[in-house]
Amino acid sequence: MSGDPADPKSEPSVADLGEFGLIARVTRGRVQPASTLLGPGDDAALVAAGDRRVAVSTDLLVEGVHFRLDWSTPEQVGRKAAAVNLADVAAMGAVPTALLVGLGCPGGTPAAVADGLAAGLWAVAGAHGAGVVGGDVVSAPSIVVAVTVLGDLQGRAPVTRSGARPGDVLALAGRLGLAAAGLAALSSGVEAPGEVLQGHRVPSPPYAAGPAASDAGATAMIDVSDGLLADLGHIARASGVAIDVRSAALPRPPALLRFAEAMRQDPLRWLLTGGEDHALVATFPPGAPLPCGWIPIGSVRDGAAVTVDGQPHGGPPGWDHFTGRK
Amino acid sequence: MSGDPADPKSEPSVADLGEFGLIARVTRGRVQPASTLLGPGDDAALVAAGDRRVAVSTDLLVEGVHFRLDWSTPEQVGRKAAAVNLADVAAMGAVPTALLVGLGCPGGTPAAVADGLAAGLWAVAGAHGAGVVGGDVVSAPSIVVAVTVLGDLQGRAPVTRSGARPGDVLALAGRLGLAAAGLAALSSGVEAPGEVLQGHRVPSPPYAAGPAASDAGATAMIDVSDGLLADLGHIARASGVAIDVRSAALPRPPALLRFAEAMRQDPLRWLLTGGEDHALVATFPPGAPLPCGWIPIGSVRDGAAVTVDGQPHGGPPGWDHFTGRK
Repeated sequence: MSGDPADPKSEPSVADLGEFGLIARVTRGRVQPASTLLGPGDDAALVAAGDRRVAVSTDLLVEGVHFRLDWSTPEQVGRKAAAVNLADVAAMGAVPTALLVGLGCPGGTPAAVADGLAAGLWAVAGAHGAGVVGGDVVSAPSIVVAVTVLGDLQGRAPVTRSGARPGDVLALAGRLGLAAAGLAALSSGVEAPGEVLQGHRVPSPPYAAGPAASDAGATAMIDVSDGLLADLGHIARASGVAIDVRSAALPRPPALLRFAEAMRQDPLRWLLTGGEDHALVATFPPGAPLPCGWIPIGSVRDGAAVTVDGQPHGGPPGWDHFTGRK
Repeated sequence: MSGDPADPKSEPSVADLGEFGLIARVTRGRVQPASTLLGPGDDAALVAAGDRRVAVSTDLLVEGVHFRLDWSTPEQVGRKAAAVNLADVAAMGAVPTALLVGLGCPGGTPAAVADGLAAGLWAVAGAHGAGVVGGDVVSAPSIVVAVTVLGDLQGRAPVTRSGARPGDVLALAGRLGLAAAGLAALSSGVEAPGEVLQGHRVPSPPYAAGPAASDAGATAMIDVSDGLLADLGHIARASGVAIDVRSAALPRPPALLRFAEAMRQDPLRWLLTGGEDHALVATFPPGAPLPCGWIPIGSVRDGAAVTVDGQPHGGPPGWDHFTGRK
């Protein structure tokens, strides 16, 4: 895959450009938001933190584990890496200000792969007001993308996982099940609607719903990365409550239903246990008007379990990264 | 390497514990500094940023590229990962407040490796006032450690790479050459003083010298990660100046000299081009008293080159990560 210097048409590899050539290439001409006080090119970046508190989270995406370059373009992987991280600060009630990106890849990786990753990261970050302020590029046996996001609460109360109270309303913003269905489609080779495939390739979390939930007094919030029931389990444990999901209230995207029928699969399984959609779920005080984009999907009760329509869920609640157990 | 559940004495693997079991194990009982407003266990951490500006940097360390577990213990790798990052915020004049850690590793990795990495990260972070506030653990084909550091300028002026002016004094804090010599020792199998081996395994950057340099009016600063001449090249280019190093002024650790003699190697090569010691180099206005720990090693001039004793350096200036060219 390495570019042949004798052939001017051959595509350069990451090793052909070298570390500094690659960094210059992927940062050239980028426009930073006002919150980027000092962008890439120094020992550290400087990011404005007017709130005097910074929300910060990090995620690793590994080739062959989180993405495959025969299933997604590099730009889609970059968009997904950004989305996964932006959802984490949204789930605290913060708006994103900055991303940092560590890229590890073999030297023979085409530079176009790095170009695509950078383009995807910039597209999503820029669309939501954040800059890509720094990073690192190193040699590695396979492609790994490490993204860190910084967020600004803008004076808002952070919404943790631990504040849900019996009587609260459970609500959802965003869509569920598409990422898991998309992965099932790509794994099985069964034809699927573009919306389903896109659900796996580039999730579209409802970023603005996070700060809106904080403004509306949400008592607990999380983004659905491991599966709805698994992530509600995190809230239930941290808050010391039980949570019941009303399955009929979960939105069912028509594309998901069509694909479930083709796969002879119960779509509810994807809705309840599919991860990586990065929808937001939150609990709100009873009677509080839900902000735009939020729909009620259940309730918070005394107890300790997560149930569906009042019953324990039969299968596993979601994904554990190492055991591979659903 | 996976633990055998039938054998209670066998050591558990990362997959045996699972993602959440591992996270619980490495975060249990850790004491966070006051700047950690919300620690691990939520969608994002919250870190105090009293200065309203956050210094932030990220680095990836890859097994087989940056470290080998037959050369370093997991705790040493953790210490190195922390040191590399803390040096980056020190080089801006900031003090570290928080680390985030992304760990990718095969499921069969002994949990003791993750324990050691966490212990090393916590030891160095804690010793310098920072917390380990969050992270991610994922399956990966080989071990990769992605660390992000946040730093607080505490009202100081950030010291970038671009402010050096002709007439400034070039100064050094910390030691050079030991990491490269240590790597040469481990690569060749030639016996070396412990101090030399430690130089590769756990660099000890002079963290406090960074903020002190800002307080003393430093005009430019960088940490030596790629090699003294290579990193001075970054300052020279960013500042539009020439820099001359007075080779006789460079501190020569006795252990380095002894090992150089054993290797029949000119120690000056390690001092000038060896990377990964994470010493700090900075430029100060002429006549400014250098803060404690800083020694003058050269001067800033009109022009564009980095020279040694007034002459161009014969060899390559340092390390490019992909070309592998020194």
